Amino acid sequence: MNTHETYMRLALDNAKAAKGQTRPNPMVGAVIVKDGRIVGIGAHLKPGEPHAEIHALRMAGEHAEGATIYVTLEPCSHHGRTGPCAEAIVRAGIRKAVIAATDPNPLVAGRGVRILRDAGIEVIQGVCEEEAVRMNEVFNKYIVSKRPFVTIKSAVTMDGKTATRTASSRWITSGEAREDVHRLRHEHAAILVGVDTIIHDDSQLTTRLPDGNNPLRVILDSRLRIPLDACVVTDGEAETWIFTGTDYDREKKEQLERLGVKIITTDGERVDLERMLDTLGSHEFSSLLVEGGGRVNASFVQQGLADKLVLYMAPKLAGGAEAPTFLEGTGISVMDEAVPLTDLQVRQLGPDLKIEAYFSKGGNHG
Amino acid sequence: MNTHETYMRLALDNAKAAKGQTRPNPMVGAVIVKDGRIVGIGAHLKPGEPHAEIHALRMAGEHAEGATIYVTLEPCSHHGRTGPCAEAIVRAGIRKAVIAATDPNPLVAGRGVRILRDAGIEVIQGVCEEEAVRMNEVFNKYIVSKRPFVTIKSAVTMDGKTATRTASSRWITSGEAREDVHRLRHEHAAILVGVDTIIHDDSQLTTRLPDGNNPLRVILDSRLRIPLDACVVTDGEAETWIFTGTDYDREKKEQLERLGVKIITTDGERVDLERMLDTLGSHEFSSLLVEGGGRVNASFVQQGLADKLVLYMAPKLAGGAEAPTFLEGTGISVMDEAVPLTDLQVRQLGPDLKIEAYFSKGGNHG
Repeated sequence: MNTHETYMRLALDNAKAAKGQTRPNPMVGAVIVKDGRIVGIGAHLKPGEPHAEIHALRMAGEHAEGATIYVTLEPCSHHGRTGPCAEAIVRAGIRKAVIAATDPNPLVAGRGVRILRDAGIEVIQGVCEEEAVRMNEVFNKYIVSKRPFVTIKSAVTMDGKTATRTASSRWITSGEAREDVHRLRHEHAAILVGVDTIIHDDSQLTTRLPDGNNPLRVILDSRLRIPLDACVVTDGEAETWIFTGTDYDREKKEQLERLGVKIITTDGERVDLERMLDTLGSHEFSSLLVEGGGRVNASFVQQGLADKLVLYMAPKLAGGAEAPTFLEGTGISVMDEAVPLTDLQVRQLGPDLKIEAYFSKGGNHG
Repeated sequence: MNTHETYMRLALDNAKAAKGQTRPNPMVGAVIVKDGRIVGIGAHLKPGEPHAEIHALRMAGEHAEGATIYVTLEPCSHHGRTGPCAEAIVRAGIRKAVIAATDPNPLVAGRGVRILRDAGIEVIQGVCEEEAVRMNEVFNKYIVSKRPFVTIKSAVTMDGKTATRTASSRWITSGEAREDVHRLRHEHAAILVGVDTIIHDDSQLTTRLPDGNNPLRVILDSRLRIPLDACVVTDGEAETWIFTGTDYDREKKEQLERLGVKIITTDGERVDLERMLDTLGSHEFSSLLVEGGGRVNASFVQQGLADKLVLYMAPKLAGGAEAPTFLEGTGISVMDEAVPLTDLQVRQLGPDLKIEAYFSKGGNHG
């Protein structure tokens, strides 16, 4: 590990420490080094407050003169609350800038770097880039597409089943894995299931962690079959939005609305997933956790709308030709047409495996 | 890592170096250390030739006097070709013995240790025991049960499919994973599929590696539906045994026998898997690789006849409610009844994952 990586890793650690508190802004960290000594450390901590570079420059004070700055994201070039960071870096007399990721917005990417270079600052790009891009995967997609970053989550046995043939599914995974799912919910702006999950399990879809945030609950229910006494309708624990098609009972819609549920109609018999994502995005829901059954998951995959897959795999076997998997629907015909996943990561979580992978067409890993 | 582990690991490495050349004997390694210097190294290299301890004692010569011996398996107490190793260790004047695994045969386990202790040798047991037991998992089961160690192998997509809805399965995994499968075949005494795999794929079931051993080919075909022109019948690359039930065409049996195929009948409409395993065991086939379809695999799992699972998992998705998984059949009814797996190991193999796990009731990991 060379020194550039060492300092950048510290900047990444500081950035990640603010996970969950920077939305809708990205996580960013910065470190300033002069003559082998760290003279400034910064992270973006809260929207509306200074960017990471500004915090680090303030800490460094006059030591910034002639120093090197490490920053996990290309310094901004726009006039926000604290002015463009790139210009602040120039004014402080920084001599060298090491940058992990460029700005995800193609319209402004490279502008910050240009300001630095035009001022005679040496710029080194791409140090720890992959980690820096991954850290802000949600922000990176949302800022460009104005749609939420979509993660499909499922718990399966080693033979790929999400339940037995009799739909028994409690519990496939261990307590550790289930706690991790609640952390996932906490980190997401919205969570989505099909109405069958509500009808079958009466799921609450809340985050059962101390101080956990409850995401917006989104139900796909094209014909408004949801029971009026479902938890998500009555419990008041979090907001619930139901997306329908055009073919539903108008009276039931009014009943649900009186119970505080928001009903959003999309054109067509089934819910139009793209319009649903646009709607969530326009309300600034930047991340969506899909905990759908096999048919809901398959709709997202088939339409190329999923960005990431998180699988919890338990060391057990269910068997059964009739037992469901997490991806049903029609499926592909020829194995060559299988949907490729990239950037596989596996780790042990108690007795289970947690497998993370990305859909290559997901958008933000170009 | 303490010194006991360091020396034992060397003994394990030497034992494993003889993988595939000790059958039907186990792999065993030994190291002799005196005053912090290695004075003898040995491994069991070939059936009928000296055991690991004898090789190491010969190398040590007079330096064995007062030395410590590290041996991966409890020294034998029986009078084989080179006499009981435990007595040879006593005669050589060894002062301390460090042993990884005890003898897997419950009838003689502990006898070797007793001979050493009775002679005043200090015995330390259990150093690197798990690794030493695992190394001889095939031998350990076979020596006790006289049935082959059964490994179920399958290649799946991340959503658990072994093929698409149209039975397309070429190829799920990468070249690296497929080469590893051929290594698995090379290491097994026999390989088993259901007749449907032969009818659908006309599989050869051979080891396509330079100098690879071809395992015995075992086909489950209760009603003798195998085509007379199937590769496994005509190609002469390896022996083929077909197990049937009682309800088959006698004339076809004779035709197949004339083509050199061995036909073995078990009682009942379907093949009796326990009798099949007994038959293979009685012919000294100590390991069986099951590459069956979902129904064949499910039979082994439901009857508790599988010892190990090897899954190759490719980072891709097939989808499809009708697409097969590697474990079909009826399956369990309630998730609590899922068949537990233990000792999960995962590693990356090219782009794919190789997941290994053990059936807890498999027998030899007590």
